[in-house]
Amino acid sequence: MSQPKIETCFSPSLLHLYDIKNSIVVIIDIFRATSTITTALDNGAISVIPTDSVSHCIELGKQIHNSLTAGERDGKIADGLQHGNSPSEFTKELIENKTLILTTTNGTRLLHQCKEANEIIIGSFLNLSAVCKYLIESKKDVLLACASWKDRFNLEDTLFAGAVYKHVQAHFEMNCDSTRAAHLLYRQAEPHLYEFIQDSSHFLRLSKYGLQFDMEYCCQVDKHNNTIVYKDGKLVKK
Amino acid sequence: MSQPKIETCFSPSLLHLYDIKNSIVVIIDIFRATSTITTALDNGAISVIPTDSVSHCIELGKQIHNSLTAGERDGKIADGLQHGNSPSEFTKELIENKTLILTTTNGTRLLHQCKEANEIIIGSFLNLSAVCKYLIESKKDVLLACASWKDRFNLEDTLFAGAVYKHVQAHFEMNCDSTRAAHLLYRQAEPHLYEFIQDSSHFLRLSKYGLQFDMEYCCQVDKHNNTIVYKDGKLVKK
Repeated sequence: MSQPKIETCFSPSLLHLYDIKNSIVVIIDIFRATSTITTALDNGAISVIPTDSVSHCIELGKQIHNSLTAGERDGKIADGLQHGNSPSEFTKELIENKTLILTTTNGTRLLHQCKEANEIIIGSFLNLSAVCKYLIESKKDVLLACASWKDRFNLEDTLFAGAVYKHVQAHFEMNCDSTRAAHLLYRQAEPHLYEFIQDSSHFLRLSKYGLQFDMEYCCQVDKHNNTIVYKDGKLVKK
Repeated sequence: MSQPKIETCFSPSLLHLYDIKNSIVVIIDIFRATSTITTALDNGAISVIPTDSVSHCIELGKQIHNSLTAGERDGKIADGLQHGNSPSEFTKELIENKTLILTTTNGTRLLHQCKEANEIIIGSFLNLSAVCKYLIESKKDVLLACASWKDRFNLEDTLFAGAVYKHVQAHFEMNCDSTRAAHLLYRQAEPHLYEFIQDSSHFLRLSKYGLQFDMEYCCQVDKHNNTIVYKDGKLVKK
C-alpha cells in the first residue's frame, strides 16, 4: 500500500497550490500564535477561539462568559484587547477554565484560510512530538502550512516543518522541494535552535519590543505535549 | 551611505510582495530556461526573444528572418516548435547569428510578469560571476526571482539565489529570510552541487525524460561568463 503524502507550504499566498480538502493541515506560527495556543490549552484553557479580526475578537469577548480577548497586529497588542500574543501571559492562574479568543497577524488568519481542510491541527516546537505522533497514526496526506510573516517566507516556521518531517519521514511519501529544504535547514539548526533562529527577520523584529524571552520559550521542544485540533470553530485538546 | 537591499522571491505567486519597480530583477530558472538563454547568447545568438505562449512563439518565428523557435511545456518540446529547451541544442553551429524565440513553462512566464522592473537580467550558474559583478557595480536594490516549478518553491533556483548572495553579501543590506535560507542551503550544496541537486523534484521529473546530461551542464559555474539584459523585448549580451 502506498504511503500518504507530506508537503510543506511556505506562505498563505501559495495555499492554492495544495489540496487541503484531502489533507490534515498543520498550522505553524512559531512566533507566536501556535506557541501561545499550545501553552494556553496546556495551562487549562477550555478552548481557544481563533478570530480573523480585532473587532470580531472584541465582540465574541462580550458574548462568551468567562473569556479573555487577546492578540496582536504587527507584533504589538491590538487596541481594545485585554492581552497580547505572548505565551508567557497565559499562565494557569490566568487562563484555567476560561475561553481564550485570539486574533493575530498571521497564524489565526492562515487558520481561517484553511477551513476547508480535512482536519486542522496546531504545530509548535512546544508540542512537536504530539504533532508527529498524531500525523503518523492518522495515515492521511499532510500539509505543513507555515503562517509566515505577511505572506513572506520565514525561517522559524520552516524549521518547525523540517523538524516534523525529520520525525515522520519513514511513514510518508515525499516529493516536495519545500519539505526537502525545510529538512536540510532543520538539520543545520537542530543542535542549537534558539541561537540559529536569532538570525531571522522575525526574531530581529520582535527583539525590538524586548520579546527575546518569548522567542526562547517558543523554541523549547515538547514542553506542552498535547495534540490540538480545530473543531466547530474552536481549538481544543484532543 | 546605506547599501542597496537584496531580497529573494521563491515563487511568481509571491512577486506582489516585492517592489520590483525600483529593483534589478534577476530571473532564475536553472532547469533550464536561463541556462539555455545564457548558452545561446554565448554561442552567438543575436538575441533571445522570450514569449509567454507557444502560439506567439510560432507567430514570431514566421515574422523574424533567420530565427529559430524553441520551448517546452511540462519539460517536453511543445508542439509546433522547432527546438526544445535543452541548452545543449544551441551550439554555435546552430544558433550563431540567429534570433532564438523561446517559451517555457516557468522562466519566460516569470520574465513577462517582471516587465515593470527597473532592470531585468538573467541568472544561471553558467554566468554566476558575471551576474554578481553586475549587481555589485549597479548599486541598486536587487530581487533574486526564482521561476520555481508552476509556482512551487524549487531547490535549484534557490541554490542559485544563495550562490549570488554569498558572492555579493559585502555590498548589500539584507533582512530577508528567503535569502538567509537560500544562503544556508547553498553552503551545504556548494562542495558538490550536482550531486546535491539530484534530490530535487525538478531533477527527478526531468530525469524521466533522460535529461540528466542537461542538468549536469546547468550546474557548471561560469562556463559562459556574460551579463545578459532584457532590453526592448529582447535578451542580449550587455
